[in-house]
Amino acid sequence: MTDLHYAVPGFDAVGVSAGIKPSGALDLALVTSRTPCRAAAVFTQNAFPAAPVLYDKRLLSFNAEAIHGVVINSGCANACTGIVGDANARLMAEALEQALETGDQAVFVMSTGVIGVQLPIEKLAAAIPPAVDQLHPNGWPDAATAIMTTDTRPKLATRQVEIDGATVTLTGMAKGAGMIHPDMATMLSVIVTDALVAPATLQDALADAVRYSFNRISIDGDTSTNDTVLLLANGAAGHAEIRGPGDAYAAFVRALTELSRELAQAIVRDGEGATKFVAVHVHGAQDDADAHRAANTIATSPLVKTAFFGSDANWGRLLAAVGRAGIRVVPERCDLYVDGGPAASEKLGELQLVAAGQPTDYAEADAAARFAQPEIDVRIELGLGTGSATVWTSDLSHDYVTINGDYRT
Amino acid sequence: MTDLHYAVPGFDAVGVSAGIKPSGALDLALVTSRTPCRAAAVFTQNAFPAAPVLYDKRLLSFNAEAIHGVVINSGCANACTGIVGDANARLMAEALEQALETGDQAVFVMSTGVIGVQLPIEKLAAAIPPAVDQLHPNGWPDAATAIMTTDTRPKLATRQVEIDGATVTLTGMAKGAGMIHPDMATMLSVIVTDALVAPATLQDALADAVRYSFNRISIDGDTSTNDTVLLLANGAAGHAEIRGPGDAYAAFVRALTELSRELAQAIVRDGEGATKFVAVHVHGAQDDADAHRAANTIATSPLVKTAFFGSDANWGRLLAAVGRAGIRVVPERCDLYVDGGPAASEKLGELQLVAAGQPTDYAEADAAARFAQPEIDVRIELGLGTGSATVWTSDLSHDYVTINGDYRT
Repeated sequence: MTDLHYAVPGFDAVGVSAGIKPSGALDLALVTSRTPCRAAAVFTQNAFPAAPVLYDKRLLSFNAEAIHGVVINSGCANACTGIVGDANARLMAEALEQALETGDQAVFVMSTGVIGVQLPIEKLAAAIPPAVDQLHPNGWPDAATAIMTTDTRPKLATRQVEIDGATVTLTGMAKGAGMIHPDMATMLSVIVTDALVAPATLQDALADAVRYSFNRISIDGDTSTNDTVLLLANGAAGHAEIRGPGDAYAAFVRALTELSRELAQAIVRDGEGATKFVAVHVHGAQDDADAHRAANTIATSPLVKTAFFGSDANWGRLLAAVGRAGIRVVPERCDLYVDGGPAASEKLGELQLVAAGQPTDYAEADAAARFAQPEIDVRIELGLGTGSATVWTSDLSHDYVTINGDYRT
Repeated sequence: MTDLHYAVPGFDAVGVSAGIKPSGALDLALVTSRTPCRAAAVFTQNAFPAAPVLYDKRLLSFNAEAIHGVVINSGCANACTGIVGDANARLMAEALEQALETGDQAVFVMSTGVIGVQLPIEKLAAAIPPAVDQLHPNGWPDAATAIMTTDTRPKLATRQVEIDGATVTLTGMAKGAGMIHPDMATMLSVIVTDALVAPATLQDALADAVRYSFNRISIDGDTSTNDTVLLLANGAAGHAEIRGPGDAYAAFVRALTELSRELAQAIVRDGEGATKFVAVHVHGAQDDADAHRAANTIATSPLVKTAFFGSDANWGRLLAAVGRAGIRVVPERCDLYVDGGPAASEKLGELQLVAAGQPTDYAEADAAARFAQPEIDVRIELGLGTGSATVWTSDLSHDYVTINGDYRT
């Protein structure tokens, strides 16, 4: 991962070790722009937002047009840390602003790791100037590695799209692994682009993309205190400014959504202890909100997720989860299908397990073959309307328990 | 467990093997009354109610005053089984009615086990007449064993209360283990009493007792398709009929609530793979509903439950769960305390971990000593009002994953 595959004109990135993680692993990432960027962001809805989330919300409220980058640490979430935590978030930003000579209020801050512990701010501040000297257009793999916590691999994605005759590039990185159940927000992700987009339109584009990507995944149903997706756009691509709806907006949002979905799915595939990647499709609900609620309830059910882990075709648990989702259901209209996902070792084809609320006469071996795949597609048809939703999730394994029974030690 | 400890005047019970479980374990229970009983019940709110739930709801709607008993099988839930399942529920009831010579519509039906499989109704119907011959006032331990699925031990409780100069006895049994997150209903439980209570008052008493017992527990956040609590009262105790509120009602509900709470807590202690029993107390919420929502969100968080399993004093996860519960929270007013529970090996005393939303300067070893106990009490003070709630829950262990990854095989 040392090529220029992820480079976006005008942007640099770097990942270094600042000594926050006792292991000495990379734990400080910078993403910077050589020219001022427009910025958009979505944040966690958790009522205990971490200090960097509060800092970034305030910054975005008065500066969405002249942003120069973001400084990110892993190993400590700077959450539930009171006014000391607030001061440390500001000090992190100031350290990068001084090293970049950007002036005040020009960079965002993100943290991820253990809750309730103060940042080693001296170590961080000391590590930032030498890291700035190493900023590079192809620093993305190191940056993506430096934001990992229990992630087992870095998550990067890139897209190009023609807008108005110009080639627009988008690159994004994300970290996930646990406490993953975004609610109008998500885990840490930074996406940069050289598109030229009006500030309000940029925020709309990010919200549209997040809705069908980061907000459609769940690993364990827990929403983090630190979830943030940040989008920086420096306008270097040379096309006419995108302002509001239209063909250019649609093309940009399509590329941004595809990129976000690739990162979101990468987070699920690397979920803590995950051995399976499961797509839950709910169709025929009364409306999209009902479909999303049903898919989410399935995706967060420990009984469903352990059955996936055990390759057990226990579809009764899927219907029981739909039945407690608080949506309109008529059991006699409910059908359920299962198939191996795109990465299945062989093309099995969709198998109907439930018709009109009752088991079909499928062969247990045929169902077991599909549940044994590393990727599983489940489709539930409620037969009530046109509402639909897809949620991507992982299974619940022994390793999830091991990782989280002993996270801080 | 062969003494008369659980006997209630006028009631008999029995547990036998009907051959539903391949292992040959007990799988058929009968609880009967020699005289007609008043009946009350609460049922699952799951939108895919099992056939026996639908049968019992209909029966209760026209006969809450002349009930002679209940027939219960384990090993098959008779859920998602369509009209064949409906017919099998009726046939189970009829087999007991014929053996008891009670006439029609006189007994309830319950089933628990795998969803989506038809009952072996011939085996069941054949086993009922010989089981009736074995009915006995001290048949409770066998009956409680025969309703177990992944439970590791039978759950029985009994209480006596003086009402109006007469001694009233209550005995109940329950089964739990998995798919435990009652919602105005619960897993299977049968409670009998010789109290004389007006039918509408009996239903009120059961609803009052369930609210602060069965509806205050969670093992895995999944609500079963079969949850039912049935209360039968034959009036043999000889006191004046309890009609509506008053001292007698209060005494009866207190005993019924204590009995229900003992059974509910026994279900949590025997939760699938459970190694810890945790009481989550939330005080100072805006109202009781908010407190209940916060306690429930903690009790169903995989991250919180794996931290309990690992004896990890990771209180950040507790606050993060409160923060996503959708209730009013002011982080700066939030305090958090932890202690070993009543069964802790030594009396440690309550330790404050969080004050005004930030960590206190507690010693990690002191926190770890409390989280290492087999019973843990967590108290969260929100500082906003007088709303409070307690929820009892278990941890999430490797064994939960093992049990549920391979339930049907």
